[in-house]
Amino acid sequence: MSKFWSPFVKDLVPYVPGEQPKLAKLVKLNTNENPYGPSPQALSAMQAELNDNLRLYPDPNGERLKQAVADYYGVQASQVFVGNGSDEVLAHAFHGLFQHGKPLLFPDVTYSFYPVYCGLYGIPFEALALDEQFQIRIEDYARPNGGIVFPNPNAPTGCLLALEAIERLLQANPDSVVLVDEAYIDFGGETAISLVDKYPNLLVTQTLSKSRSLAGLRVGLAVGHPELIEALERIKNSFNSYPLDRMAIAGAAAAFEDRAYFEATCAKVIASREQVVAGLQALGFEVLPSAANFVFARHPHKDAAQLAAALREQGVIVRHFKQARIAQFLRISIGAPEQNQALLAALQTL
Amino acid sequence: MSKFWSPFVKDLVPYVPGEQPKLAKLVKLNTNENPYGPSPQALSAMQAELNDNLRLYPDPNGERLKQAVADYYGVQASQVFVGNGSDEVLAHAFHGLFQHGKPLLFPDVTYSFYPVYCGLYGIPFEALALDEQFQIRIEDYARPNGGIVFPNPNAPTGCLLALEAIERLLQANPDSVVLVDEAYIDFGGETAISLVDKYPNLLVTQTLSKSRSLAGLRVGLAVGHPELIEALERIKNSFNSYPLDRMAIAGAAAAFEDRAYFEATCAKVIASREQVVAGLQALGFEVLPSAANFVFARHPHKDAAQLAAALREQGVIVRHFKQARIAQFLRISIGAPEQNQALLAALQTL
Repeated sequence: MSKFWSPFVKDLVPYVPGEQPKLAKLVKLNTNENPYGPSPQALSAMQAELNDNLRLYPDPNGERLKQAVADYYGVQASQVFVGNGSDEVLAHAFHGLFQHGKPLLFPDVTYSFYPVYCGLYGIPFEALALDEQFQIRIEDYARPNGGIVFPNPNAPTGCLLALEAIERLLQANPDSVVLVDEAYIDFGGETAISLVDKYPNLLVTQTLSKSRSLAGLRVGLAVGHPELIEALERIKNSFNSYPLDRMAIAGAAAAFEDRAYFEATCAKVIASREQVVAGLQALGFEVLPSAANFVFARHPHKDAAQLAAALREQGVIVRHFKQARIAQFLRISIGAPEQNQALLAALQTL
Repeated sequence: MSKFWSPFVKDLVPYVPGEQPKLAKLVKLNTNENPYGPSPQALSAMQAELNDNLRLYPDPNGERLKQAVADYYGVQASQVFVGNGSDEVLAHAFHGLFQHGKPLLFPDVTYSFYPVYCGLYGIPFEALALDEQFQIRIEDYARPNGGIVFPNPNAPTGCLLALEAIERLLQANPDSVVLVDEAYIDFGGETAISLVDKYPNLLVTQTLSKSRSLAGLRVGLAVGHPELIEALERIKNSFNSYPLDRMAIAGAAAAFEDRAYFEATCAKVIASREQVVAGLQALGFEVLPSAANFVFARHPHKDAAQLAAALREQGVIVRHFKQARIAQFLRISIGAPEQNQALLAALQTL
């Protein structure tokens, strides 16, 4: 450790994202990207920003995007926060809403960035075990806490928690913020944004990286009570006045405005998922019920790490987590039909 | 204050950026943007990224950009950090390098984001008075500190500190990080990056928003010893894996590669600055010596706030800070020749 580092830096255990390989030929099913490109309207909107006006700062508040999100969900723009990917939005939420000295609660099997944020901001946490079917047990969260966070559907399991259960959680924790991280909600779940007017302690985050095919543009958002949004705005305006560039604001807004394209591509991904599930089951895999654009699967007789390595040799990349409880699972993103076929064909040889 | 907020949030006093007016007709000389558009090569590089591949995550490490910066300055890529605007880079540096319990030192008249970062990360600070010519007095910084930061040239004064003085500061503070924020260095200063191999306590930040005409793209960078860069990488990877989008990485790298365009536009801005200085002096203004793309000027008999308001009525926006010592100054960005003429013509009537 360097004497120049702030003391907490030496203990940071950064998040490790899925590999972004430089070889174009690979069947890349490891980071849950959408197999379909962004809305043509989003590409046009970005094109319109690609000119000499890039010499000028963007709107620091991204109002065009906030309004597009508000219109889409039928909420007010004052209930919307936007940021440089949902990871940045989550970071600000951890910083601004979870530093209460009491432990933050989240599932033991979940998005592995959560404990990293806790390390960054000095937030104690408790990881509560999912049940044997990898489902969240709501009753476990009835304990003193400084906040609750989980993805819905959960990652990397893909399992969905019903809105009714989320409502019970909100009611049982009126003094804590419950953050529902809906990175994958559009592939089979129902958004909790319908509940934000009823529960001032609910914050919902989403990303444009998955269902809106814009992982390369870096845009995320949060929806909640204006009081929660104000905390995020205060942090953002004390961190970086202009987190979204001109093309990101325009492209993301247009992606929300193009409902037809969004719905069509989500439907295609969902249909492909059902084919992949059937194909994996036919090969003897157990597949957790998925409401996401990926599946989480294990084979009763084949080692997951060996499978992942063997798939890679055949040019197919999936994600494997060396982690308790899930070390025998593979997380497989839903790709284009030919990619999914390549995956199943490769697995058939292993 | 909301009970849901982390306790420090209520005391945050966010940074207030210069206005981004929605009216296109204004002569906008308030946020130090470049009057010339980005390099055509940068626009082409972004164009090449504007396609269906935006569905894929960008390179989390922005290696293409790091290499372009390293090549430009003759350093190693391991000495370069890149982020979502230099404000984000500065935030990570404050967080990761200045939390030592001892006060951070910076000038009393300087970039007003510095005390905001201190509020965000709980860093004590001392603001040391510039001398009567608004110059940094190196000898004042010989006191116990947890770090030193200042812009060079300073903002909003435009005054330059010589490299020789920076070297004395580095030698006098071998146990502290000295952060030289070179947002405006290309308009007349000499970068301290030439010193990073000699001083492991030196970190230099730059932005592509000013001399490289890409305020709308949000890219900044830092150069320093790999040990300092590692602290920034640890924070970044515990905050947001992918801070730069695909177009930002490509456009910023191309902007660094196109030296000829960069040098030509900087020369034009510098020539215009000298004309603006002469014009202001002819109107009776005192103008501080500027090495930036703005000038800081006061009139011995005319109130700065009233001047700013009157200019605005004539469609010219400049920046005025309601702050001790500088309340009688206007900060005026150097615009295109016709904008500078409009400014001087408007001032002539006031």
